[in-house]
Amino acid sequence: MSIAVVVMSGGLDSCVTAAIAQAEGHEVAALHVSYGQRTQRRELRAFGEVCDALAIGRRQVVDISHLAAFGGSALTDTAIALPEGEDPDRPGIPVSYVPQRNGNILYIAATWAEVLLAESIWCGVVEEDSSGYPDCRRSFCDAIERAIGLGNHDDHPDPRITTPLIHLNKGQIVARGVELAAPLAATWSCYQAEDVACGVCDSCLLRLRGFAQAGVPDPICYR
Amino acid sequence: MSIAVVVMSGGLDSCVTAAIAQAEGHEVAALHVSYGQRTQRRELRAFGEVCDALAIGRRQVVDISHLAAFGGSALTDTAIALPEGEDPDRPGIPVSYVPQRNGNILYIAATWAEVLLAESIWCGVVEEDSSGYPDCRRSFCDAIERAIGLGNHDDHPDPRITTPLIHLNKGQIVARGVELAAPLAATWSCYQAEDVACGVCDSCLLRLRGFAQAGVPDPICYR
Repeated sequence: MSIAVVVMSGGLDSCVTAAIAQAEGHEVAALHVSYGQRTQRRELRAFGEVCDALAIGRRQVVDISHLAAFGGSALTDTAIALPEGEDPDRPGIPVSYVPQRNGNILYIAATWAEVLLAESIWCGVVEEDSSGYPDCRRSFCDAIERAIGLGNHDDHPDPRITTPLIHLNKGQIVARGVELAAPLAATWSCYQAEDVACGVCDSCLLRLRGFAQAGVPDPICYR
Repeated sequence: MSIAVVVMSGGLDSCVTAAIAQAEGHEVAALHVSYGQRTQRRELRAFGEVCDALAIGRRQVVDISHLAAFGGSALTDTAIALPEGEDPDRPGIPVSYVPQRNGNILYIAATWAEVLLAESIWCGVVEEDSSGYPDCRRSFCDAIERAIGLGNHDDHPDPRITTPLIHLNKGQIVARGVELAAPLAATWSCYQAEDVACGVCDSCLLRLRGFAQAGVPDPICYR
């Protein structure tokens, strides 16, 4: 069984991504990265519960909160207010953007992939989000895949950056998760609360809209 | 004065790289990354002394020893023996290779560069070493430069990965450092000792050969 390193935040998208990797016959090696975001303890708990539900034994948790020390993001800098109740489709980069977050995370995944001789790194990025987050575009994934392949041991496999959700919308992601019986109830999406999801931040709004589009109830509670 | 983020290990090459960046009129923002290597305390001390000597005020120190937890390198795994007294030109990847080390470090630099709106990231990699370390090739630097530019905020500068030593040999690097009065006496190169340099590891051998080629005495002591 080939090993797939899957980047897993504890959120909906990465849960469905891991379920797809398993459905395609890979052994999942689950990588969770905390980066000083407000809800990191809650996301870590969700990561553990999703891994338990998917029977994933191979797990690594890495802390890169040094990114927070550099500043520049509302997700890590509590002096910057998070937007509430706004249109998640509004143009421009959200204040929750963390500079080069996905590049940092994918490189940690690449190190682990090389040690495991894994042939793929899976990441639940969605191109629909790319107006907000430049590091969620497939063109970015192609570029970093190339850099990773050039920078590794010549005798080791060049891992593919696999992004099964890249062209799906949130409703399709929810539907795919339901189809695979992925443990969506164990996931956490809210950007600002750790007890009960706020239901008003960008991430909650996007999730709620996804379940509505898929026509299934969201199994988690909201404030 | 434009800001240049310079990756600085505390070694000879990065000291000369920082001196070149200053000579070209940049304000240096110095980034030191520890990754669980055997001599990290000694390298951190050298980093501080080199920064002091170059009057660099803007400094960040980041610990990514989670890479060591993944295993796979003699530089971080003391169960793997480091070679001594061998030919530094021998073919193949050295056991001191850390999978994707430079990619991880350059992405941390890219995050800081984006926060600072820096237009360049400087790195003292040497193509001569590339038979050993694939992530020291210019082709790798070009690929990661492209990924960083695609993954950043569209309104922010795409930083150039600047590698002024890439085509120099160790003798030429030493000569350039002497010419710029770079604080070579404050640098540390040895891979295995922290008190007095061993003089027999690959890194010491390469350094000693460089000073010999340049025809100047190495200002540090050896065992």
